[in-house]
Amino acid sequence: MRYKVTVAYDGSNYFGWQSQVDVVNIQDVIEEALRIIHKREVRITGSGRTDRGVHARGQVFHFDTELNISEENWVKAFNANLPHDIRVLKVEAVSERFHARYDVVSKQYDYYLNMGEYDLFQRDYVTQVCEKLDVEKMRDAREVFLGTHDFSSFSANSFEETPDQVRTVHSIDISQEGDILRFSFLGNGFMRYMVRMMMGVLIEVGKGKLTKEDVQKILEARSKTAHRYKAESVGLYLTKVNYPLD
Amino acid sequence: MRYKVTVAYDGSNYFGWQSQVDVVNIQDVIEEALRIIHKREVRITGSGRTDRGVHARGQVFHFDTELNISEENWVKAFNANLPHDIRVLKVEAVSERFHARYDVVSKQYDYYLNMGEYDLFQRDYVTQVCEKLDVEKMRDAREVFLGTHDFSSFSANSFEETPDQVRTVHSIDISQEGDILRFSFLGNGFMRYMVRMMMGVLIEVGKGKLTKEDVQKILEARSKTAHRYKAESVGLYLTKVNYPLD
Repeated sequence: MRYKVTVAYDGSNYFGWQSQVDVVNIQDVIEEALRIIHKREVRITGSGRTDRGVHARGQVFHFDTELNISEENWVKAFNANLPHDIRVLKVEAVSERFHARYDVVSKQYDYYLNMGEYDLFQRDYVTQVCEKLDVEKMRDAREVFLGTHDFSSFSANSFEETPDQVRTVHSIDISQEGDILRFSFLGNGFMRYMVRMMMGVLIEVGKGKLTKEDVQKILEARSKTAHRYKAESVGLYLTKVNYPLD
Repeated sequence: MRYKVTVAYDGSNYFGWQSQVDVVNIQDVIEEALRIIHKREVRITGSGRTDRGVHARGQVFHFDTELNISEENWVKAFNANLPHDIRVLKVEAVSERFHARYDVVSKQYDYYLNMGEYDLFQRDYVTQVCEKLDVEKMRDAREVFLGTHDFSSFSANSFEETPDQVRTVHSIDISQEGDILRFSFLGNGFMRYMVRMMMGVLIEVGKGKLTKEDVQKILEARSKTAHRYKAESVGLYLTKVNYPLD
């Protein structure tokens, strides 16, 4: 039986979803929970990685099991064996043909930043910009990213590992509550650092240091050296992974 | 020159304001910052202790120095030498007769709890009760604590260390925003665990497991074994310390 699992985590204490080096990552911790439940090794397959310090409200993975446990009891079994900063929200029985990575239709990432005074209680959860940004200029400049483009200038992926760096950004919604800005990105796929590099450039626009035209030029450069702006990981959340049957 | 300093901190990573054992506490970290600035040992005197995991938005301490630095530059010097989870908010030159502990007129502590779904991003900042509480019953029962009482049943202080356990609670304001409840305590002094033990009992009232009459009996027992309820430290904040000239 294959199960699709939706999981939330606080990325503060982990080296990302999966890491090459021998440090604590979220996938390992979840696989350890499954090892305890099954008394043998069980591998999981995530929708994709998240970087060190990045959070998730709705990461998705799948795994296969012979155990006969109800969906609700799977949620309980996971959470009984997971630390408090990783919580399984939902477990659904799915077809054996479901694949958490290959079947992704789109993903939503949210980025939070604080334009007000430094909030030490939110330092791991909201990027502390601590200065007023020109939100209208950011809203205008974000249009450069909408649609289908070669995002080579906005990803850390090399051309060797990712020859095709064309992606589609469906929408970037900006909302404000007090001094907190939320940028909600919906796209068919995001490469490594892509959201953080778009946010890094948008923050510079908000500070008046880059214009919409500069952003356009950077995008058109299709170059790994077109700019060096990358917003912090702490304000970034993988909010939702969408699949065909959702 | 004596300075009064207002400081905020995230208590998550510390064993309280001051600890007996050789573990990292907030006072030590601040004294280390002052040691770097002065190139010699400098002691500070806090308004009182906070426990492991308890936060502060407005803890106060004083220290003496021969250095001639403006109030604003003291703020910068502190924060340049402090970790990101401890931030000095204000530094004020005061009379040599000012004493951060002896001069306290009253203190405000705030306690936050979440009646909604478990929020892993707030697990160190809001106590996750995750069930609906009867707020009106809690509001009614809190009246038992208002005024001047012997709070022996609501403190961990032994009678040897604290012979006089009479304290005055001026007010307990309860406010609600969505599923988050805030309890704001103002009193002339709070003994060890006093707010957490009052909150522990009020939460039981909210769950329907204790009545206002039970709370009255527990208070009147003036006993260290009258009950065993103590709310978690994570939801507790030392919000403000009041002095005569404020």
